[in-house]
Amino acid sequence: MKVLVHVSLKPGVLDPQGRAIHHSLEGLGFGGVSDVRVGREIALEVADDTSDEALEDMCRRLLANTVIENYRIEKL
Amino acid sequence: MKVLVHVSLKPGVLDPQGRAIHHSLEGLGFGGVSDVRVGREIALEVADDTSDEALEDMCRRLLANTVIENYRIEKL
Repeated sequence: MKVLVHVSLKPGVLDPQGRAIHHSLEGLGFGGVSDVRVGREIALEVADDTSDEALEDMCRRLLANTVIENYRIEKL
Repeated sequence: MKVLVHVSLKPGVLDPQGRAIHHSLEGLGFGGVSDVRVGREIALEVADDTSDEALEDMCRRLLANTVIENYRIEKL
């Protein structure tokens, strides 16, 4: 089973990578961009009997830093 | 308009970050994981009249390295 874990910074947490991209887009002449935030998308290939609890556990213990990041699990 | 750009390594391109996560998951006792690949998810807030062409252009020129990465544009 393929699982996508979307990890994004919580609102309010500073995102220097996003700001750098925003600045570069403006430098390249792309106007009209008002915000850029960068997150991770982790694609896992797991056994079909992997429980939702195990997936949550992976996110909380390793894939996301829940102090500053949110995560969302998407099963494909 | 909110746009998500999903950037992932092309198949066959080595992903050391994914391998490190895979190894760590096994170390934490999570069996049954057969593959891990790490990509980026860039959330853009752009003007509503931004053309698809401009978005493609942003991806090709800055957001993705098309030699080794694929990208997918998702409008929300």
